[in-house]
Amino acid sequence: MNRFSFNQITAKHWDLEDLVAGLTEAGVDKVALWREPVQEYGLERSAALVRDAGLSVTTLCRSGFFQLDGWFDDNRRAIDEAAALGTNVLVLVSGGLPEGSKDIAGARAHVAEAIARLVPHASAAGVTLAIEPLHPMYAADRCVINTWDQALAIAEQHPVGQVGVTVDTYHLWWDDTVLPKIEAAGPRIAVYQLADWITPLPAGVLTGRALPGAGCVDMRAFHAAVEKAGYTGPIEVEVMNEDLWRRPGREILADTIAGYQSI
Amino acid sequence: MNRFSFNQITAKHWDLEDLVAGLTEAGVDKVALWREPVQEYGLERSAALVRDAGLSVTTLCRSGFFQLDGWFDDNRRAIDEAAALGTNVLVLVSGGLPEGSKDIAGARAHVAEAIARLVPHASAAGVTLAIEPLHPMYAADRCVINTWDQALAIAEQHPVGQVGVTVDTYHLWWDDTVLPKIEAAGPRIAVYQLADWITPLPAGVLTGRALPGAGCVDMRAFHAAVEKAGYTGPIEVEVMNEDLWRRPGREILADTIAGYQSI
Repeated sequence: MNRFSFNQITAKHWDLEDLVAGLTEAGVDKVALWREPVQEYGLERSAALVRDAGLSVTTLCRSGFFQLDGWFDDNRRAIDEAAALGTNVLVLVSGGLPEGSKDIAGARAHVAEAIARLVPHASAAGVTLAIEPLHPMYAADRCVINTWDQALAIAEQHPVGQVGVTVDTYHLWWDDTVLPKIEAAGPRIAVYQLADWITPLPAGVLTGRALPGAGCVDMRAFHAAVEKAGYTGPIEVEVMNEDLWRRPGREILADTIAGYQSI
Repeated sequence: MNRFSFNQITAKHWDLEDLVAGLTEAGVDKVALWREPVQEYGLERSAALVRDAGLSVTTLCRSGFFQLDGWFDDNRRAIDEAAALGTNVLVLVSGGLPEGSKDIAGARAHVAEAIARLVPHASAAGVTLAIEPLHPMYAADRCVINTWDQALAIAEQHPVGQVGVTVDTYHLWWDDTVLPKIEAAGPRIAVYQLADWITPLPAGVLTGRALPGAGCVDMRAFHAAVEKAGYTGPIEVEVMNEDLWRRPGREILADTIAGYQSI
């Protein structure tokens, strides 16, 4: 449990103050926060709330979306938000194809250029940019970076610690080549996130994920791979699921901990 | 148009006799058939119907599903059906994980073994087994073979002509490494199928495909790759879409031809 971090999106509708109280009550000392609820509560207020509760913020989720107008300024703000919250990891979801485009190679090249432009600011703020490869089913509308290889190739254009890769079991489990690549990636692993795969997928395919152990992902194989890589950082459980979200926050947290411990 | 083949599933609810009449009327001389409607109409009757209309059958879709009990006998029957229909290509959808399993590597190994067991019968019948890599979003429940590399590696355990790979734009478009691999695969390409990618995906993610040109896939890049590979065979349009299926068969065919010609 000393590596467990509760990702805020897993209890999407849990009020931030209640979330912090619930984590403290459950003896959890790590949390991953999302930009929107933090902005809603207020950045400085959120930072004080988690700091005063003795929580450490493992990541800020999520920035990126480099296909949108204004991406540069928005990502710089996200870096500042991460620093203000006391986390050194900002998760990047790179965004989909520009409207009407069929040029996915061009969109991918743009992601690499965009990240390169953000590195100086992130580095100065002490924030690692954690590129998250998203499952290929999101290639068109959410993230054109869909494999471990693509994310690592971009990260490796920069020093370790400035740009890394997010290991999320939900996005990578299907890839028969990924485990040895994770093992070999060593300090490029910026954060490790758990969610399980269940079917059928819901419309829009965003909110059909499951708590660890409830699906078909071999989580122990991922645990072994990140361990061999030398990763000793937090293990976040990050699950988006409409049925889960309808439940009270404390129940979600209890089941999340149970799922985490079942692996 | 001399390479165009209409895949029967694109007009799922079009009666087989009407389909054959509609194709003839439209000057289309190639069709890909599905096992279920052929079995419903009768195998010999279906074979006679298409033969008498002067249609050539480009593929029989689909067999595989190697995780199910009875896969061996069912796949042998599918090979016989393909031969009876006069096609030399049987498309294989390899099936998902066995119920409750987290062992995707084991399921993949089983697919390779199953295909090896089927090759003698297929070869004797003059039927090429066309392994279809399905999009990674189907890895759990439909097909554990999700990349070009996986399909090709299995095919290459057998002589060219006995086992090949199905190029389907819908399943492969997201893969940044696939085009040069297709170019290099030469005679391993057993058939080339077109469907386009649109979002949002519907629940179940099976029936959200679009006619060529309506989505974000760069079809011309795929055309160039199969051409460089030396593939001169049929180009099937195979689209599963609930909205399309609700329309009259003749309209679907007309729009399919228009989409095909728009590339």
